[in-house]
Amino acid sequence: MPQGLPTDRWLLPDGVEELLPAEAARLETLRRRLLDTCGAWGYEQVVPPLIEFLDALLTAGGHDLELQTFKLTDPLSGRLLGVRADMTPQVARIDAHNLKREGPTRLCYVGTVLRAYGDPLEPSRSPVQIGAELYGHAGLEADLEIIRLMLALLAESGITDVHLDLGHVGIYRHLAQVAGLDEDSEATLFSILQRKSRPDLDAFLGGLDIPPPLKAQLAALIALNGDDEVLFEARACLSGDEVAGAIDSLARVAQSLRRLHPGLPIHFDLAELRGYHYHTGLVFAALVPNVGREIARGGRYDAIGAVFGRARPAVGFSADLKQLMRLGTLPDDGLRRRVWAPAGDEPELLEAIRQLRAEGWQVIQALPGQAEAEADCNWRLVRQDGRYLTQPITD
Amino acid sequence: MPQGLPTDRWLLPDGVEELLPAEAARLETLRRRLLDTCGAWGYEQVVPPLIEFLDALLTAGGHDLELQTFKLTDPLSGRLLGVRADMTPQVARIDAHNLKREGPTRLCYVGTVLRAYGDPLEPSRSPVQIGAELYGHAGLEADLEIIRLMLALLAESGITDVHLDLGHVGIYRHLAQVAGLDEDSEATLFSILQRKSRPDLDAFLGGLDIPPPLKAQLAALIALNGDDEVLFEARACLSGDEVAGAIDSLARVAQSLRRLHPGLPIHFDLAELRGYHYHTGLVFAALVPNVGREIARGGRYDAIGAVFGRARPAVGFSADLKQLMRLGTLPDDGLRRRVWAPAGDEPELLEAIRQLRAEGWQVIQALPGQAEAEADCNWRLVRQDGRYLTQPITD
Repeated sequence: MPQGLPTDRWLLPDGVEELLPAEAARLETLRRRLLDTCGAWGYEQVVPPLIEFLDALLTAGGHDLELQTFKLTDPLSGRLLGVRADMTPQVARIDAHNLKREGPTRLCYVGTVLRAYGDPLEPSRSPVQIGAELYGHAGLEADLEIIRLMLALLAESGITDVHLDLGHVGIYRHLAQVAGLDEDSEATLFSILQRKSRPDLDAFLGGLDIPPPLKAQLAALIALNGDDEVLFEARACLSGDEVAGAIDSLARVAQSLRRLHPGLPIHFDLAELRGYHYHTGLVFAALVPNVGREIARGGRYDAIGAVFGRARPAVGFSADLKQLMRLGTLPDDGLRRRVWAPAGDEPELLEAIRQLRAEGWQVIQALPGQAEAEADCNWRLVRQDGRYLTQPITD
Repeated sequence: MPQGLPTDRWLLPDGVEELLPAEAARLETLRRRLLDTCGAWGYEQVVPPLIEFLDALLTAGGHDLELQTFKLTDPLSGRLLGVRADMTPQVARIDAHNLKREGPTRLCYVGTVLRAYGDPLEPSRSPVQIGAELYGHAGLEADLEIIRLMLALLAESGITDVHLDLGHVGIYRHLAQVAGLDEDSEATLFSILQRKSRPDLDAFLGGLDIPPPLKAQLAALIALNGDDEVLFEARACLSGDEVAGAIDSLARVAQSLRRLHPGLPIHFDLAELRGYHYHTGLVFAALVPNVGREIARGGRYDAIGAVFGRARPAVGFSADLKQLMRLGTLPDDGLRRRVWAPAGDEPELLEAIRQLRAEGWQVIQALPGQAEAEADCNWRLVRQDGRYLTQPITD
């Protein structure tokens, strides 16, 4: 080994990984199935760039996205670049600025994103993000279509036992606004609700100078999670037209999903505010037992295109394709046909190999000195009576 | 637009691009075809990471790769990371350190790489690199298989009129060694040969204190490019067993290729030293008329795995999938079936949509207020006599 080189040269950074042939093949199969499903639902693929000017990448994101984004200096422009940590704002830019279509626009995407820090629940720093976005329609029908497509992709991945979490950021947003919270206070309360800390909540509300009924409503949020009765309780204890509208949206979407997916467990959580920084309406997540974090998530984010010159209603979801690949079970095609062919370049031999490959067989042509056993084949190509035939290799 | 944001927020850095639906669909189709072709030849896909510790990435590269590699600081380890600018050294690491197989190992890969600087001939800084590598076999049969696979991928891409350039870095390497050139002088001569500057070459050789016959051989290199006669001339004017062996290799590979690809123009260039920093033997490139640079390139690089603890013979090639997509013509499948389905969630309607999607149709379900004309469909799903039927949309 050359002098001065560390001996751990093959180690990868924490949260960064590579896929060897068996996993890579499963990832590729799943990638194709999921993109094809998106295509069948009318979602067209786009390919956003891996790097962009930092200010364009961070437009929609807030502090967390900024923290997670790896920064680079562009030697050509001297400007700061970022490696994408989330493709959603990129696709919103493509819808708003590049496509400029009038009606509803359905887009999907898949690609590696990088995150500067993992987090305890999601240690991967290089997930393969796959997602779909529906722009240009503000109705609940669009939210519903996106949730159904997410469920279809999970089913295609062979993931069963999915639970759905539903929330609506409009409820918290409205109450915080009525309470006149400044930015810092809103962020503090947000953080308390995320960790569902009742003592911290009581202490925080105790120091607020707002009417007791409003305090009671903010305090109630933390307990508003569970089954359908959550919506009844929310209607009883929260006030305001916007809040009532949000609760109605949750009820209507849940009702439709119950009809379309009769076995799907649905859980409401009015204090769960995933992606609060850019979401504006319904938010949702898919979970499975024994996995401590969401396996797919999304929501409505109607304002995101505004900074690109065109505010369009938008709803979408995303997931980590590598995680789906590891959680799901794809049907084994059971038809792996790997053929060992003899060395040589006689026209008949090469034509026999060409035909097998065109029919979908994997053909390994022997290299001088290579042993058949090394090539892990289950068929061999042999010459018999002047013709080339395949025969199974029996051990 | 929010205050303080630049108005060019949607501009992308030079040499960085995104793909809108039409191009993204063509790229995806080509990606699948080429990976499937690699699979049919027995090449297994691996997925190297997008970032690695810088010293691991640069192991095999030399100065140019270092210059082209974007650097990042890893907030977790405090170490320098690089974004891959070339996947070849990564795949060599996977073969040497992770797979550790004994016999010949065939691997392929596809993914975005980033380059800090474009170059005048290749302005893209974010190509989608696709390639294949054959490890563990030092024979010319391996070189030949890799060149034939490269030609197969170009044919699959619908690229015709391919020319092949063949060279061998062993010739220059041997002559430079015999001449006892120090590192700086070798780099200077290398650069002169790359730009084929006869005056610079004469000036450089004039200042060298080496025997005149050796000077004459180094001077001859610059003119040794063209048809088969190049090999005759090289045999006549260059000396040394290693040089003769390299010329024989070129002759044998060209002979086999002429038999297997009768129409393929082959051009020899003994002073063309692509990837000289890590290549060790035969080098090759595919070119097409009116494109000022190679569209695929590769060669033998037997030493690359040594720093990962295991030197294995290796030969491979790579290309930019986006460039292949733009140069080639893929057959139009002509069967685009995009169906406009009515809104609603009655079970019969949803079942009809589900069936069409499972059969490969794209089905756009109407959202309230969305006009059929906006959805760019060529079929519609209608209810007739209690059943759902598709009918073509005629303008």
